[in-house]
Amino acid sequence: MNEFEIIDQFLAIKGKNRKDVIIGTGDDCALLKVPRGQRLAVSMDTLVSGVHFLADGDPADIAHKAIAVNLSDLAAAGAEPAWITLSLTLPDNDQEWLKKFHKGLLSMVEYFGVQIVGGDTCRGPLSITVQAHGFVPEQVFCKRSSAKVGDLVCVTGYLGDAALGLLVAQNKINVSDESTKNYLLKKYQTPYPRVAAGIALRNIATAGIDISDGLLADVKHISRASNLGAVIQWKKIPLSKEAKSIAKQQQLMSSALAGGDDYELCFTVNEDDLEAAEQALKMVGTKCTAIGRMVGKQGVTVIDQGNEINLDDDGFQHFE
Amino acid sequence: MNEFEIIDQFLAIKGKNRKDVIIGTGDDCALLKVPRGQRLAVSMDTLVSGVHFLADGDPADIAHKAIAVNLSDLAAAGAEPAWITLSLTLPDNDQEWLKKFHKGLLSMVEYFGVQIVGGDTCRGPLSITVQAHGFVPEQVFCKRSSAKVGDLVCVTGYLGDAALGLLVAQNKINVSDESTKNYLLKKYQTPYPRVAAGIALRNIATAGIDISDGLLADVKHISRASNLGAVIQWKKIPLSKEAKSIAKQQQLMSSALAGGDDYELCFTVNEDDLEAAEQALKMVGTKCTAIGRMVGKQGVTVIDQGNEINLDDDGFQHFE
Repeated sequence: MNEFEIIDQFLAIKGKNRKDVIIGTGDDCALLKVPRGQRLAVSMDTLVSGVHFLADGDPADIAHKAIAVNLSDLAAAGAEPAWITLSLTLPDNDQEWLKKFHKGLLSMVEYFGVQIVGGDTCRGPLSITVQAHGFVPEQVFCKRSSAKVGDLVCVTGYLGDAALGLLVAQNKINVSDESTKNYLLKKYQTPYPRVAAGIALRNIATAGIDISDGLLADVKHISRASNLGAVIQWKKIPLSKEAKSIAKQQQLMSSALAGGDDYELCFTVNEDDLEAAEQALKMVGTKCTAIGRMVGKQGVTVIDQGNEINLDDDGFQHFE
Repeated sequence: MNEFEIIDQFLAIKGKNRKDVIIGTGDDCALLKVPRGQRLAVSMDTLVSGVHFLADGDPADIAHKAIAVNLSDLAAAGAEPAWITLSLTLPDNDQEWLKKFHKGLLSMVEYFGVQIVGGDTCRGPLSITVQAHGFVPEQVFCKRSSAKVGDLVCVTGYLGDAALGLLVAQNKINVSDESTKNYLLKKYQTPYPRVAAGIALRNIATAGIDISDGLLADVKHISRASNLGAVIQWKKIPLSKEAKSIAKQQQLMSSALAGGDDYELCFTVNEDDLEAAEQALKMVGTKCTAIGRMVGKQGVTVIDQGNEINLDDDGFQHFE
């Protein structure tokens, strides 16, 4: 199979045929129509074998994650996903691997109603770059930089499950209960980005980010961009019963505060709008928890029983 | 320097501040405005070290090429380039390499008036993925599939220079004349995509593609997409005086017909519109040569002195 046939077979199967795609894969460019009154939001992320996923991981999960991390960025901005471009670098032409990868890809693009409109395939060390494209109505965009002093800091879902799932996958934690084990593994391997939640929070959240680097690192991004600080209450952090059933306090803290890969949303909201945020998220079946507050003093601190906690590790970063 | 500082320093320096960029680098997503009445054209390409560029190549040239190959796809579609996203995977944090890479990047985005609006950096084997975004007026888009029987096949510029430049870079050809050597090396290392030519050909060309895989392979793409064939006259192929001064017939043929990397445009045009195409290209300082004709019989043949030429190699492909 040559390069063009790989593209045809694996990337041209593209999810639903959207009306806003005038020309999709197969030409020099894709030709796309952004609906009137909407802005285009784009996010690009690369996943590298051995860095962002285990080299022998299930190809379907790798495809899932490559799409998920990008849709999660769109979710943080309140954007409605529409199109995907995908560049796949492969060490060899492994049909079985490609078949599984394609299965994971197709399942995600169908679930989220997006269409693969272009991309590239080439030979080299395994990596995947995805760009997600979505729409945001004019005047609406949830930035990192618009949090205000006194705003509540909120998160969706539970934190730390993905980091614990990674430890399970690496056999660093032994979990006897099968359903707990599967729950945590899935949270790490196949996270579902909070797309509907992001759209529901339009016009309610004052700032937003997705939790990919770890809660503290991501709260720092919001704080710095807004020229503020934040105080987080450890006792308020939402932890799943599965996480609590297998991990001790120290491990729960490092997973939930610094673990990364949860792909939940972290957003700020005026106190008067908390109920609106809770209601909006309830409508899309998502839990909402206020975990702290934005303050004027720069820096992010975590409080437990009235004392400030010192943390060595403040979030996952690729270069130190 | 951590990941975020690399992004800040090297990717946030982004060319001109375009009015259609509402939010650029630094947030979860870029937020962009496609002008009313315009469609969005996108193209994504990955360059892998050792496959698409020499591992010890000048980082400025690598950046140049990563932008050029994508703008060339936009040019083939007659799109006006606007925004770039770029994901850079690096084996280590080599400041000198990054400085040179950035210089090449900045020079290209400034030359073409585009803005880097987002991307990613991560650790891994060296590769670069770029997506270029451009605008095409509604109802105008130069596809591969719309060539008609009898249309002339035309190309811009000279063919084969890039392939000869690669042979020079690899010391497979010895060129004594310095200016000839530099000319060929530049054609390979730092091609300038035919952006102005692509825009000039809007509404004149019936189909178009950029010559990246080699003339014959790219004419095949147009032919197949249009359900037609093409007959190319070898004697009409435009060859630079530099190419003719160093290469013999056989090498000229393989370079010009199968060499790839020229990033000239190949387009089809109704015979009655040839003069319009020549005039339009003259306005942007680009040479136009008719080299053959679209025919009903499928397949691409090359004729030299009345005889069909048999070619072993029909174009560069990544997987065989």
